[in-house]
Amino acid sequence: MTTEAFTEQIAWPENGLVPAIAQDHKTGEVLMVAWMNKESLTLTAQESHAVYWSRSRSKLWHKGEESGHRQVVHDIRIDCDRDVILLKVEQIGNIACHTGRRSCFYESLVNGQWQTISAVLKNPDSIYRT
Amino acid sequence: MTTEAFTEQIAWPENGLVPAIAQDHKTGEVLMVAWMNKESLTLTAQESHAVYWSRSRSKLWHKGEESGHRQVVHDIRIDCDRDVILLKVEQIGNIACHTGRRSCFYESLVNGQWQTISAVLKNPDSIYRT
Repeated sequence: MTTEAFTEQIAWPENGLVPAIAQDHKTGEVLMVAWMNKESLTLTAQESHAVYWSRSRSKLWHKGEESGHRQVVHDIRIDCDRDVILLKVEQIGNIACHTGRRSCFYESLVNGQWQTISAVLKNPDSIYRT
Repeated sequence: MTTEAFTEQIAWPENGLVPAIAQDHKTGEVLMVAWMNKESLTLTAQESHAVYWSRSRSKLWHKGEESGHRQVVHDIRIDCDRDVILLKVEQIGNIACHTGRRSCFYESLVNGQWQTISAVLKNPDSIYRT
């Protein structure tokens, strides 16, 4: 595929991956962080749906391709060093996390221990049918 | 220094650094992303001020040590993979970015081009006195 000029302005590190934050475009809630390479950023901009690079599977990851929990992208931002991407998204299905929670950031440090502070909205078994 | 048990539960990658997002604890605005190692996370929790690891300077970075723009930490969260940290902070001085802007994410993709969408609130020359 042809990558677009704006992707050349990213300060890609040696491994070609930068962190990408998905944030609810209305509430500001941080939903998840994944990784993007040049191709996934290009596709995200072209399709207006979040496309990441799965480090564990070493392939493009069209968010929601299995779960249906796609992310409609309303805005794409970069930071001052141009090595972190921020997506403002609408989270389809209200669930971003593979655990069935709205956000992946569901553990908070309380008195020196990580405590789960968010409920599972949907059983992951019913999200990912094998 | 002694690191604390909760830091052992982070899935530290080989280089010992995970991304840390600083988010305004009231408005939800994403202010910046930096990196943390075990020691900086321990100090952040102990001091309730954001302490990062500066990759460019290869040393601990007490955010605001030069600028005075410290970040008071209200909440520390981790994600489901335990390899990304989210800080809910109060941004002292209302400026997180070294460019003098509130947030580092001041460029947005508009019609295929990165456009600056946030104003400089304070001249960086007056923030960082040499």
